[in-house]
Amino acid sequence: MARRSALPPIPEASVLRARLERAREVAAGAGLVIAPGSDLRYLIGQPGGSFERLTALVIPADGAPALVVPKLEAPGYGSLPLDELGVEVVTWVDGVDPYNLAADRLRGAERVAVSDFTPALHVLGLRDALPKAEQVLAGPMVRELRMRKDAAELDALRKAGAAIDRVHARVGEWLRPGRTEAEVGADIAAAIVEEGHAEADFVIVGSGPNGASPHHALSDRVIEAGDVVVVDIGGPVAEGYNSDSTRTYAVGTPRDADVPATYAVLQEAQQAAVDAVRPGVTAESIDAAARKVIDAAGFGDYFIHRTGHGIGLDVHEDPYIVAGNTLVLEPGMAFSVEPGIYQAGRWGARIEDIVVVTADGVESMNNRPHDLVIL
Amino acid sequence: MARRSALPPIPEASVLRARLERAREVAAGAGLVIAPGSDLRYLIGQPGGSFERLTALVIPADGAPALVVPKLEAPGYGSLPLDELGVEVVTWVDGVDPYNLAADRLRGAERVAVSDFTPALHVLGLRDALPKAEQVLAGPMVRELRMRKDAAELDALRKAGAAIDRVHARVGEWLRPGRTEAEVGADIAAAIVEEGHAEADFVIVGSGPNGASPHHALSDRVIEAGDVVVVDIGGPVAEGYNSDSTRTYAVGTPRDADVPATYAVLQEAQQAAVDAVRPGVTAESIDAAARKVIDAAGFGDYFIHRTGHGIGLDVHEDPYIVAGNTLVLEPGMAFSVEPGIYQAGRWGARIEDIVVVTADGVESMNNRPHDLVIL
Repeated sequence: MARRSALPPIPEASVLRARLERAREVAAGAGLVIAPGSDLRYLIGQPGGSFERLTALVIPADGAPALVVPKLEAPGYGSLPLDELGVEVVTWVDGVDPYNLAADRLRGAERVAVSDFTPALHVLGLRDALPKAEQVLAGPMVRELRMRKDAAELDALRKAGAAIDRVHARVGEWLRPGRTEAEVGADIAAAIVEEGHAEADFVIVGSGPNGASPHHALSDRVIEAGDVVVVDIGGPVAEGYNSDSTRTYAVGTPRDADVPATYAVLQEAQQAAVDAVRPGVTAESIDAAARKVIDAAGFGDYFIHRTGHGIGLDVHEDPYIVAGNTLVLEPGMAFSVEPGIYQAGRWGARIEDIVVVTADGVESMNNRPHDLVIL
Repeated sequence: MARRSALPPIPEASVLRARLERAREVAAGAGLVIAPGSDLRYLIGQPGGSFERLTALVIPADGAPALVVPKLEAPGYGSLPLDELGVEVVTWVDGVDPYNLAADRLRGAERVAVSDFTPALHVLGLRDALPKAEQVLAGPMVRELRMRKDAAELDALRKAGAAIDRVHARVGEWLRPGRTEAEVGADIAAAIVEEGHAEADFVIVGSGPNGASPHHALSDRVIEAGDVVVVDIGGPVAEGYNSDSTRTYAVGTPRDADVPATYAVLQEAQQAAVDAVRPGVTAESIDAAARKVIDAAGFGDYFIHRTGHGIGLDVHEDPYIVAGNTLVLEPGMAFSVEPGIYQAGRWGARIEDIVVVTADGVESMNNRPHDLVIL
């Protein structure tokens, strides 16, 4: 079992050390337990494996952090600057209880914060090893760090955005009547890698009525002339930061007469939301900016999801651009702006760019035109 | 966000219905909460998505099961026979608390069992919605079902085994001096798909000293004449069942003089373990059979992991072939037999087949020769 790629680039040790120190600060006295995944990658430079054996970075309120790791997986962390980071490696072999090893670092903690995607197996294993500690989520702590991207992270997001733009520029090579969504999707997946991603993480080709299901992926539906097709694609570049961009295509003149006018509303809504992005406004105000345009045109009931999600080492992360999120936007926050209008049983459309809050406004990571692309 | 493939084949509704009923039985009064992943695939035919929004199959001790799912992801479950299975679909939209929706089905439960890979986000969300219920793991319950494969599952494992055998038969096309592990790995990954897998899940090419790290994946190390190379590869076929097979190759005559004799011990140990497999013996006895041969030859300290792991919809699942596991083997149980000998800093070797317990002995899903393959 292993990841497929060779070792990806990792941040400077000084950057990682600052993140570890800041994580301890935001934990405010709680012990932190970070399981494999993007939180671990953010803090030590590598996501680690995520199998049934416990691997976890344990950061006590006082004292050195420890990476608890199965002995046979420890060599996989050998290229990390763990010494420089002051992270002690604690290995364990089959037969040992790893939860007690982790708990040993956290004795006396009243609260233990576990990373949001720690498997229940380990959450309950830790609970039993530290029965007096209250378990809380580490997500709200770690997001305080991850939500504000630094210059290197923004560079990686720009690289990912430019790569996915190049794929969208080529969609006309593959999206043709007579081919299935799955066939088109396979070509797009290959191009996502060719154009500079480490892998193709997701490929949505929602043709005709399938476009009205926002999270439809691929099917064996044969694309027909007149279809409107939602293409929502992305993946990580080597540094781990993701692209995620949607454009809507039409295979010849759209079959449904309401497409042009409805799409114009969507395009106006997406632009209004992007234009609203700047430091000092709330996340929910961006959602409201898109929704206001769509509601005013009478399509409110057809816009059935939030306007966007943060993006970085995860495709979906904070900040979420959704009603009720009063988080105030700050420079360095990166998220999607992706309103959609869905006509159940007939067609759907969505436009999605990744944007970043700058010192005085907004920068878009995606720069393909927003018009309906007639192929 | 979506999975890349078109819809995979799913088991008959009658099979799934029987599994759901049996899951309720083994839960013995506990409510079950099954998050996306292979447990969900086993019970309803589809693994579901695994994002930040709660999707969960909730099986109360009494009453109908419910699939709690974000409204915009619900169409993705539209091809499942949920009506026939008696599973009610409960959708929720952003802004609603999905944990209360799940909890509504489990009111009064003294115990709630969550699937082992449920993210902490949802484990603690459910805990807060049902503060009086004790949370336990569903894994020990669901494994009672999943551990014994039925005829269709065994067919899928045979198909996966034959496909990975075809890849091993071709390794000589790619494994040559002057190429990096990563380059060889990329070719192998492509062949894993070409030969009939839905995807390449993992590719280990451990050359020279890297072969002595059992979970090493790929690196930019250039393969040299005289290297011993561990190739451990696998992935799922369309039905979701996995292959996992290791062979050890030598690029010309091995550099290290101790290779032939040591490898002969390994080969004898692996065969002894396979020969020990039959109904009625314990899982740990299979581990002991391999270890006895290796210990007797003086290599005990160089065999640093358990002998094997169960396999099915997950690459690693019950039964684990490890000291201390007194589980008695029964027909239909499938697992790897994969002893290894690791000479740190020089070379390593491992031989791995997937085997299934039959009515009176053992069947191997992998049938490539066990000799060191000299290329």
